Amino acid sequence: MNQSDNWWENACESAWPLRFVDINLRSIGQVMFQDKPLSGLFFFVAIGWGSYAADAPEVAIGGLLALIVATLTALWLRVDTAALNAGLYGFNAYLVGIALTTFLALSPLLWVYVVLGGAFSVVATLAMTNLMKTWGIAALTAPFVLITWLLLLSSNAFSALPTDALPLSSLIEPIAPEAANPLQLIDFLEGMVSSISQVFVKGNGIAALLILIGLAIGSIAAAGYALVAALISVIVAHLLGAESQIITAGLVGFNPILTAIAVGTVFNRPGLRCALLTLLATVLTVLVQGAMVVALKPFAIPTLTASFVLVTWLFLLAKPDLAED
Amino acid sequence: MNQSDNWWENACESAWPLRFVDINLRSIGQVMFQDKPLSGLFFFVAIGWGSYAADAPEVAIGGLLALIVATLTALWLRVDTAALNAGLYGFNAYLVGIALTTFLALSPLLWVYVVLGGAFSVVATLAMTNLMKTWGIAALTAPFVLITWLLLLSSNAFSALPTDALPLSSLIEPIAPEAANPLQLIDFLEGMVSSISQVFVKGNGIAALLILIGLAIGSIAAAGYALVAALISVIVAHLLGAESQIITAGLVGFNPILTAIAVGTVFNRPGLRCALLTLLATVLTVLVQGAMVVALKPFAIPTLTASFVLVTWLFLLAKPDLAED
Amino acid sequence: MNQSDNWWENACESAWPLRFVDINLRSIGQVMFQDKPLSGLFFFVAIGWGSYAADAPEVAIGGLLALIVATLTALWLRVDTAALNAGLYGFNAYLVGIALTTFLALSPLLWVYVVLGGAFSVVATLAMTNLMKTWGIAALTAPFVLITWLLLLSSNAFSALPTDALPLSSLIEPIAPEAANPLQLIDFLEGMVSSISQVFVKGNGIAALLILIGLAIGSIAAAGYALVAALISVIVAHLLGAESQIITAGLVGFNPILTAIAVGTVFNRPGLRCALLTLLATVLTVLVQGAMVVALKPFAIPTLTASFVLVTWLFLLAKPDLAED
Repeated sequence: MNQSDNWWENACESAWPLRFVDINLRSIGQVMFQDKPLSGLFFFVAIGWGSYAADAPEVAIGGLLALIVATLTALWLRVDTAALNAGLYGFNAYLVGIALTTFLALSPLLWVYVVLGGAFSVVATLAMTNLMKTWGIAALTAPFVLITWLLLLSSNAFSALPTDALPLSSLIEPIAPEAANPLQLIDFLEGMVSSISQVFVKGNGIAALLILIGLAIGSIAAAGYALVAALISVIVAHLLGAESQIITAGLVGFNPILTAIAVGTVFNRPGLRCALLTLLATVLTVLVQGAMVVALKPFAIPTLTASFVLVTWLFLLAKPDLAED
Repeated sequence: MNQSDNWWENACESAWPLRFVDINLRSIGQVMFQDKPLSGLFFFVAIGWGSYAADAPEVAIGGLLALIVATLTALWLRVDTAALNAGLYGFNAYLVGIALTTFLALSPLLWVYVVLGGAFSVVATLAMTNLMKTWGIAALTAPFVLITWLLLLSSNAFSALPTDALPLSSLIEPIAPEAANPLQLIDFLEGMVSSISQVFVKGNGIAALLILIGLAIGSIAAAGYALVAALISVIVAHLLGAESQIITAGLVGFNPILTAIAVGTVFNRPGLRCALLTLLATVLTVLVQGAMVVALKPFAIPTLTASFVLVTWLFLLAKPDLAED
Repeated sequence: MNQSDNWWENACESAWPLRFVDINLRSIGQVMFQDKPLSGLFFFVAIGWGSYAADAPEVAIGGLLALIVATLTALWLRVDTAALNAGLYGFNAYLVGIALTTFLALSPLLWVYVVLGGAFSVVATLAMTNLMKTWGIAALTAPFVLITWLLLLSSNAFSALPTDALPLSSLIEPIAPEAANPLQLIDFLEGMVSSISQVFVKGNGIAALLILIGLAIGSIAAAGYALVAALISVIVAHLLGAESQIITAGLVGFNPILTAIAVGTVFNRPGLRCALLTLLATVLTVLVQGAMVVALKPFAIPTLTASFVLVTWLFLLAKPDLAED
């Protein structure tokens, strides 16, 4: 802990409103595994910028509202203080708030959904944490995926929640070959950059830069994993003939980025084996992301971070047998 | 245990046919968590009346047949006697029998399905009980949901099992706003009443009254939870703009009723916190029920009690961390 | 262990290339639960013959390639030697290789998929083995099902992986009664024979005979279970009115065969009870297979061995309570 951390930590100790801010910033940082308020602050500003630039301020507001509701709910439920202070009860809520305001149209009941989603995410986080600790692994963003899928699906049943921003339900069709245009170097760069900001459900260059800085503040290694994974994802997806527009929009790369950081950090002994395992997990996430996009077409909901969760769980579940590495 | 219980228990001890009747009545009672033969008797009469009134006596017969098969199967498999006597191996079978005869057309093989469903439900109950006891929680009606879904789906593959009563498979479409008509006070009442009887897959006023009496005999608190949850579900669904016809048919409320009784009974210390947690679980079940209805459209199967199971499992899994309440 | 086994085991001990061959043959044997290289050799020749006769040598090659990649991956990851030597890290990969080359069109990237699928299957096997050992049961072919489903689904997202051999995505429709033609005795025999070879995703009479011999070499009882289960499946499916063409192609029977061997071997005390439990599991697998075929129509992917895995897991999970048998 360096000096500035020390100063902030002391301030938080002595004033509960600062502690409350600290918890919420760390929660935002935990979306990318960083238990650092400054990382969270950069991510928060990135989302703010991204949603302002997209003329959708409701997204930044929705994320913040769900997060605050979640933190208050967690305090009310008297959850484990160490985990709460590390931001582990807020990052799913933050993503729920961002996703609901991105994929549902603005309406009065949308905000009720955001509040309910924030509270629900704490229950789901507690539940899935207890479930997964049987195998010594974390719930990751599974609570976010579960709750957002349920709430987005339910919006089709309720006329007070217009669903204009969701895709249409359709049967599965193989991609048309002409959708996979050759990419220029600039397209690869755009894809990499967008992939980083799509972790927070937005494609925006400045947001991506801010996120990368926040990540580097938390961990240089994590920022490195993110960049390399973004590059690999874009290349692999293009070689496989994925739709060019999806690649450049960053919709292939955000899950592999999360996988690379998670797996790379867990299998963290230097050496060829860990590097290869992380590479394998990253490449597989590109394929699984493709599978999820296809499988969800009839349900008209986005994949969110489901492919990251699935692949990372598999690698973490397999880990005890790889421990001698 | 009061005097009449004592008399019946002594009679069961001394005559095995009465014990067999007792087990089956308790099984029916356990559909709504009541380990009381008299509650089961009221529920049984309610279903009998409901299926007679709907000119569908096969439903009452199907439930009874599956239940008896399950009890015999459980005896044959020498399951734990205490759990058997408490009706824990029969309530899933009873629901399987009711649902199969409700959603499949009458045919000779339907009865084979009911018998197989009854036997299968015992295996599934044993399996899921062992699975979930890792986290100290019950299987609830998950075996009923799993087996009924599988058997209903399979009927599309077999021409000897006509499927006329199942919905048509379709893609997902948002509800048309005009489907959410304003409800009159009488509609709210109808929705509440139907919600109670839909727990047993039937909408019928007299059946609902009998169920409520049976529930109150078992537990006044449970009857109270049921009534309040029915009211809340109907109101929440209407505020969200759910289809009016679905609300008045009780198809929104039966899952939240089960959630309220289950969660309300588990988080059973008096006080604001427990009341609020139960309220949150009840409201979330309304949303999750909406999500399930939508998600199952392509599969052409009903939600059954899946939303109750999912939400209640999440709250029960989260519970260890809420234990200090 | 008889004399010829002894000779081969000694040879494997003294020469690692023979050990490598031994591991791979046992892996193939494990597809039908036989930890015997000679069984694996017969299965291998059967698949070779089947794919040659169908003018699809890529299937035999694909299976072998994925298997070798998996064995090398397992060696690299230094998995448990006893399990590796028993072929437990290879049988899922062998099936992945066969299925990918069966359901995807030939293309350069298909082979990349086969290699990735082989490596992925080892991670998935480690993961699911750790997951399921919480309840003392095996992962069975669940890793094969999971990985193949994901990779087949993903092929729709990638234009470099043509999907011509996959079914079309469709809504669910009940089977037309005229599709269930009366079967002749010869059709029943054809259905039985095809069911046996469909365990390895191919319908071929000579292959079926070789598989049956390989099975009998490993265990006469297993061969008996396979034959009886094949007969029962074909009869039950026909009585239920399943599509005749599907029955004679062996697409109903391969899952019940696997269930019968797995459940029959586990509940292996002689007697009526074990026989009835195995019969129940076999019949239920026919119904669940019907359900899976229907449920997967929108996703345009085959059931693979999912119905075997689901039913067998349920019976194995239930087993602790049946242990006094």
